[in-house]
This record gives sequence, C-alpha cells and structure tokens, in this order.
Amino acid sequence: MKRSDITHLNCSVARALDVVGEWWSLLIIRNVAYGQHRFTDIAESLGVARNVLTDRLRTLVEADVLRRVPDPDDGRAARYELTDKGQELVPLLLMLMQWGDRWESPDGAPLNVVDSSGEVVDLALVSRRTGEEVDLATMRLRPGPGFRHEARGG
Amino acid sequence: MKRSDITHLNCSVARALDVVGEWWSLLIIRNVAYGQHRFTDIAESLGVARNVLTDRLRTLVEADVLRRVPDPDDGRAARYELTDKGQELVPLLLMLMQWGDRWESPDGAPLNVVDSSGEVVDLALVSRRTGEEVDLATMRLRPGPGFRHEARGG
Repeated sequence: MKRSDITHLNCSVARALDVVGEWWSLLIIRNVAYGQHRFTDIAESLGVARNVLTDRLRTLVEADVLRRVPDPDDGRAARYELTDKGQELVPLLLMLMQWGDRWESPDGAPLNVVDSSGEVVDLALVSRRTGEEVDLATMRLRPGPGFRHEARGG
Repeated sequence: MKRSDITHLNCSVARALDVVGEWWSLLIIRNVAYGQHRFTDIAESLGVARNVLTDRLRTLVEADVLRRVPDPDDGRAARYELTDKGQELVPLLLMLMQWGDRWESPDGAPLNVVDSSGEVVDLALVSRRTGEEVDLATMRLRPGPGFRHEARGG
C-alpha cells in the first residue's frame, strides 16, 4: 500500500502525495472544483470505473478533502463538495493545468483561466509578503519545526 | 497502462498527470530539484526499489522532464538534471509542499522555504499581469484553442 511506502519520507510533498497522489484523485478534485458534484456526473465525465470512483471518493472524504452531503434535489443521493482543505488544492490544479498547457498541448490549451476582464491569466507563484516570484535559485529550504533527523528524504 | 486511460480527457491537468502523476515521479523530481543528481543517492534517499527508479527515470527522460548527462567525476556513471520543462514543475512541488505542511503535518513543517532575507515564505498563486490572487471564485475557465467538443472531461 502507498501509505506505508512513503510516510517514512520526512517531507510534506510525500505526505501531500499520500493524500492526492493517486491520479484519479486529482482529476476528481478538479471535476468537483469545476462544478460537478454528483457521482454519476463525475463517473461519466471521467470515464472511470464506478468501483474505482467509489473507492477514491471515500478516501477523499476520509482525508477531509471532500465533504459528502445529501443532495437537496434527491434525498437518497449525495453531493460531493470541496472542504477548505480541498479548496486549497485548486491553485495547485491550476498550475498543473498551466504546465500541461505549455508542455503537453501541441494544439493549444483546451481550457484557459480568464480573469474578470476576460483576459487569459498567466499564473505565477509568489511570496505573499514580498510579491517576489518563487524559485529555488533565489530561495532555499531549511529544516522546519517538524524536521526529524532520523528520517530519510528531504 | 496509464497513458491509454486518461488521454481521452480533454484537459491539461490530465495530460500533466499522465507525465508526472505517478507519485514516485514527483518525489524523484523533488530530489533532483533539491540537488540530488545520482541514481544511488536518489535510490537511497527515497528508499525506492532500483528497478522502479530505473523505470521512472527513463520515463522522465523520455518525457523531457529530466536530462541524463555523463557524470564529470565518473565517466561510467550518469547525472540527472532538470530540463526547462522539469524546472517549471518546481513551483508546483513547492505548492504541494505548502499544502502538506498546512494539512498533513501536525508537528509543523519538516522543511520551510525561506527567502533571501531568511524569512519563511508563504506562497500565493497570482496572475502575473495583475498580481491578483487566483481562485475559481473570481476567475473562470473558458474553452481554449485546443478544446475539442467531442472529448470528455473538462
């Protein structure tokens, strides 16, 4: 199992991947973020097997990334919504989308992110305090409060 | 195989995941970005089986995310370096790290990103043009030049 394989890595990238690293998981989160909330809609849109989707949805609800609520239009059915924790993955999805647009989409971007003025948005990762663009050439990594010397990884 | 499973999805998130969605792949990219360039160092740090690492490295080189170059200290060995395409995944890794710090690290962040003044960086995703912070509440998605009506996904 994934979980036992990577939690020894003393790094939040590994821990994040332990939650969302399964590729269907990120696609499901994407679809919910884009406004699809029902099992059948997500299943049809992704073309994913229903048992796989059931399993991934349950894992995401257990990880508090999605919330399962009764569907107001159909009491027997459920809606899936992003929690705050899930909502904070949306910028990450948008960056992944921009990377895919740039490097894996020879015909051009299938979808553009546009701002309120209708202009296509070019995303940049910055420091919230300084507005400076982030990369590892200008910034560096330092052990934080949760660092454990005995662990592998970085 | 992964590839045949998701390329029908008309979305750059799916295409990006097709390249980097395997969780070892992102951890390998992370280690190379942090300055580990040799097979044996990466294998030991991640605790990954050598055949798995060989396979993932080959896939990442084929996808032009990593470049394999002769090791100047040992002509028979190789170094792995990030290409430009791989370098553009680093902000994404940093975002994934920040998300994991915030939501999956009860003991605090194992590693902090610090800027040149030594302050811990709080990352934000902004529009490069306006500096406005990005989320799907203020921005929206619109079909781009590569949109295909017949395809599923979004």
